[in-house]
Parts: sequence; structure tokens; C-alpha cells
Amino acid sequence: MRNIKLTIEYKGTNYAGWQRQKSIKVSKYQSVKVKTIQETIEEVLCKILQEKIKLIASGRTDAGVHAQAQVANFKTNSDITFNKLARALNGLLPEDIVVSKAEEAPLNFHSRFSAKSKVYRYTILNRKNPSAFLRDTVYFYPFPLNIKLMQRESRALLGRHNFKSFQASDNIERNPVRKIKKLKITKEKKLIYIDIEADGFLYNMVRNIIGTLMEIGRRRLSPGSLRKILSSKNRKYAGPTAPACGLCLLKVKY
Amino acid sequence: MRNIKLTIEYKGTNYAGWQRQKSIKVSKYQSVKVKTIQETIEEVLCKILQEKIKLIASGRTDAGVHAQAQVANFKTNSDITFNKLARALNGLLPEDIVVSKAEEAPLNFHSRFSAKSKVYRYTILNRKNPSAFLRDTVYFYPFPLNIKLMQRESRALLGRHNFKSFQASDNIERNPVRKIKKLKITKEKKLIYIDIEADGFLYNMVRNIIGTLMEIGRRRLSPGSLRKILSSKNRKYAGPTAPACGLCLLKVKY
Repeated sequence: MRNIKLTIEYKGTNYAGWQRQKSIKVSKYQSVKVKTIQETIEEVLCKILQEKIKLIASGRTDAGVHAQAQVANFKTNSDITFNKLARALNGLLPEDIVVSKAEEAPLNFHSRFSAKSKVYRYTILNRKNPSAFLRDTVYFYPFPLNIKLMQRESRALLGRHNFKSFQASDNIERNPVRKIKKLKITKEKKLIYIDIEADGFLYNMVRNIIGTLMEIGRRRLSPGSLRKILSSKNRKYAGPTAPACGLCLLKVKY
Repeated sequence: MRNIKLTIEYKGTNYAGWQRQKSIKVSKYQSVKVKTIQETIEEVLCKILQEKIKLIASGRTDAGVHAQAQVANFKTNSDITFNKLARALNGLLPEDIVVSKAEEAPLNFHSRFSAKSKVYRYTILNRKNPSAFLRDTVYFYPFPLNIKLMQRESRALLGRHNFKSFQASDNIERNPVRKIKKLKITKEKKLIYIDIEADGFLYNMVRNIIGTLMEIGRRRLSPGSLRKILSSKNRKYAGPTAPACGLCLLKVKY
């Protein structure tokens, strides 16, 4: 038995997220099967290895969210070489999913439980006109954002906190305490990058933080708000959920 | 009568190039209409201004070639404001064409004849695996390229030369002399950028130069070859035509 670790890059635009889903019932007589990234890769692995494969990822990504280096592992009895496996995968996978690495992992390696931290990047295109190239991979926002205010305010999020205010209200976890290790806001020409590293993220946490930081950058929330929102432990005080298209899982650290 | 100058960004992947084309006869009974960027914009302008509009661009771009700032002008009797025109255009144009600027130009301004130089960028993704994000906008090339060799060799192209060796063999211009003002090869992580500025380009000239430089970077042509190919004035000695997807019209200078 081998445990194989894959590093995967994908453009999430055309998928209903990472996780395999049952078909969705849309009427009494009709149900719809949605395409997910997990399922797409599992089917190709199954074809290559002639085995039923179950992929375990570092975490789900939502519909429309991208990954530069998602990590997923699976157990197999096959003795295929890594070179051959990666080549076969990239030959059979659709163009928006690329396996950048296939390697051996210890048998007890688990993409989710072994992860020490994850880094997400949110990208905002902050200019008057949208981009003909980046429609699917940035959030186009035409109103001026004050980066300095956002940078200053974001410091309140660093460290270990109860992030209940930034958790999707329909998806409550028992323990909403997470540790944000880094949060960096940079600007290159018209692109604003917000990089967040944490030991874990609650459902929608990154996108709710981004939505709130943008309200601050647009001066619709006053300085000091973020600290108050955080301590309120109430989702209703935070800003809106930023759209999925701007979000990308940059890296998983083990 | 006003002369209006547009700056246009487009992703060329889904178009048969800039220039409006007659339908192509594919059999005795059937002809196919191809979609071009010029035509797509002209039709939207016609809807907005209720006038027949003829767009003059700085030059054609081929099928699959992109533009960050193509320039095109048109004459109109309409008194529409620039803000309103740009907003209406971007509202009606497909997502892969964006008008980034609409401004007044002197009546004698001609996008092609008034241009002093044009800057093209060619982008190569030089790594083992393709990208899930950049399939349409870079040329994925998995073999190692020696950038230093390419940089050194490329100097032979600078200045005024007869570029007949780099001209598409089925598209002969009477005067194949052009002046390359700048040629810069840079690398950022796995992306190689080749920026070329010239007072004008022959048909396929950029892509033939890129194809030749890549042969040098891959050591399939020896150092000194470029000078010899240039002076041979014979297309058959140059390298292959690099694919359209990597090419982008960066800027037109007036």
C-alpha cells in the first residue's frame, strides 16, 4: 500500500467547488449532477490505476474558488512511477486542472489533519474598467480603496481569536477559534493582494474578512471597527462576503 | 464631425483576429462567418450611436493574439460624452473586450498612419507543467531555455534592418525594412517575457523572431546564427512561427 501526495493547481470557475456532491434535486422529477474538482480527478485516477480512488484534500474550496497548490492524498496498491502518474493525469484532466507534483508520502500522512497552516490570496482589480483577461480570477471593484487604512485595521485580526463574527451564519462550528499567523496587503499597479495565513479557516472566513476589510478601505466602516466586530462574535456586524472568483488557495504548509 | 480614439484591451482567444472578414466559403453550398474584434466593436458602436461606424486600428492582430492597449479611431457626428460612450461600450461588449479609454483626437489623427512605434510582448511559460490559469495567454514550453544566450543573440536585431527573413513567406511586402528600437528579455519565476518595440512589424515578424530566439535558447541554433539569418533575407533559415496565444500588443506610441 502506498500513500501518494498530489499538488494540484486549478481554476475553479467551472466547478461546484472541490468536494464531491450528490446530485441536487431541482424538482420532483429532475435532479442535477454538478461537476466538482475532487470527482473529476478521482475519475481520471480510477481510469489510470484501474482502482477506486478516494482523494483526501487539505480542505474544500467553494464553487468558483481557485487553487495554486491544493494538496490531496490517496492510498493505492499500484506501483506506477510518479513521473508516469503526473504525465497521465495531466494528459487526461481538463485544461483547468493541472497536477504539478506527485510524490510519496508516509502512510500516516493526511492532507487535512497533517496540515499546519494554509495560505489564501484574495485579489482585487481596483480600477475603473474591468479586465478582458482576469474576469474569472480577480474581483473587479471600481471604487477607490484606501490600502493604508486596510493595512492598519487588519492588524487586529492577527493572532488567536474567536472568529465567529466571520463565520458563515448557516455553518456553525463548535470551536470557532483560529490563529491568523500572517496577513499582508500589497498593491501592484491596479491589483490589490490580500494574503492570509492561518492554522485553519472557518467556512467563508476569508471571504467575510475580505468583505469587511473592503468596507474599511472604502470608508464605510470607521477605523477601530474591525476590533469591535471581532469581539462582538456576531456575523451580522461584519461586512458582506467577497465573491469567490477573487480567492485562491496559495499553499498548504505541513 | 468628431474623431474619437479608443484604447482597447482584448483577449483574442475566441476571435479570428482584429480585422473584419468576409465569410469564408467552406464548400459549394456553405460559407462560414468568422467573428472578429473589429466587427464586434463596430456593431456595438452602431447600436449606441445609431450610425454606421468604421474603426481604424493601429494594425491588425492575428487570430488568438491579445491586446492590452490596441488603439482604434472612428469618425462620428454624435455628441455623446466620453464617459457615457465608454460605459455603454463596456456594458454591451462581450467580457473579453474592454474599452479602457475613449477620448477626443484631432481630425487628422489616424490610428495606423500616426503611430510612431508599437510594443509587443511575447510570454512563455517555461516549466514542466502547463498552467490551469494561463492556457490562453502564454505559450507553454516545457524544455529548458537559456535566457542569457537569447539576450546576447537578440542584440543583432536592434536597429534598422531588412527583416525579410522573419516575414511570413506568403505575405511579401515591398519594403521589408523596419527599425527595432528595443528588445528586452526578462524572466520572473517561470515566465519569460520578450518585449519588442519597432516602428512597424511585417506580417508574423514578432512570432518568427520569437520562434528563432527560442531555437537559440534551446541550443538548436548556435550563437551567431541570428545575424546570419538576418542577412540571408530568406525566411527558410529562421525558426518556426511561435504560436499566437503568447503574443500581446502592449502599447502603441504616437
